[in-house]
Amino acid sequence: MRVGQRYVRDDRTLTHLCLVSRALGAESIYLQDAEKDVTGTLEEVNRTWGGEFKAVLGTPWRKVIQEARKDGWKIVHLTMYGLPIQEVTDDLRSLEKILLVVGGPKVPGKVYHEADYNVSVTSQPHSEIAALAIALHEIQSGEELKRTFHKSRLRILPSARGKRVVEN
Amino acid sequence: MRVGQRYVRDDRTLTHLCLVSRALGAESIYLQDAEKDVTGTLEEVNRTWGGEFKAVLGTPWRKVIQEARKDGWKIVHLTMYGLPIQEVTDDLRSLEKILLVVGGPKVPGKVYHEADYNVSVTSQPHSEIAALAIALHEIQSGEELKRTFHKSRLRILPSARGKRVVEN
Repeated sequence: MRVGQRYVRDDRTLTHLCLVSRALGAESIYLQDAEKDVTGTLEEVNRTWGGEFKAVLGTPWRKVIQEARKDGWKIVHLTMYGLPIQEVTDDLRSLEKILLVVGGPKVPGKVYHEADYNVSVTSQPHSEIAALAIALHEIQSGEELKRTFHKSRLRILPSARGKRVVEN
Repeated sequence: MRVGQRYVRDDRTLTHLCLVSRALGAESIYLQDAEKDVTGTLEEVNRTWGGEFKAVLGTPWRKVIQEARKDGWKIVHLTMYGLPIQEVTDDLRSLEKILLVVGGPKVPGKVYHEADYNVSVTSQPHSEIAALAIALHEIQSGEELKRTFHKSRLRILPSARGKRVVEN
């Protein structure tokens, strides 16, 4: 879930967050403020590259957290102020269902208290996109990199040089 | 190094790439097209949070690669068409000096041929910011997360709840 608005519209960051979530094994992303048609972008990406990743729009963050908790999900908030991810990796890997929360400077203070874990990917300022990527990677022990996406129109054949793409 | 222009200006992605490079242990970043004052942003971040990370502006990508190669650096280009990172991690970890190249849809074909390694972080479309983060993380075996930044004005004390920041 992405929480928090920005003063400046930030479509590109939003798109990156969605695509990283999808590529690195999340089921769906909850967005508070989808100003642009990310849904259309994601449908197009699913059609071309496979899978069924979804964006869920407009549910207030508190409600998303409350309902997730009721269903047995743990809330993991990524923030530069949290506990270093390398110190809680084992804990996180033991969880069955995780709602990752990312935000930015405008995350409400209450998110810190609603979260089961506040986790940092370094205590340096950088990027919620990078923090999300490393969290997904660590939680899944790198297994997410081997994932295949069903029902894709195109598929890449990894190669040492150039671009090889086949139609399915 | 970031290669390739975009049709739309993309300041936010550029800033994320710089900050991720800094936070996850790169020495500097080479930019082809720094439309905005990233240098100022980075100086401010260094002043507040420490370290000596630098942006180098305006050197053509070919020259950066040629000079790096001459000095014994290996060129690792991140692209969704490349070899899966989990299959070349050992190779990458054995290299002493690495120039990581990230781009986007507009990367010239020649970059693929100049690179010593073309490496993918999944063969799915997502984000050069996320790909860079995972590459830096894998190459350094997660050690980059433990890094400290010298001469910072502020320092975060990691905590399970809330924000704790101290002045040095």
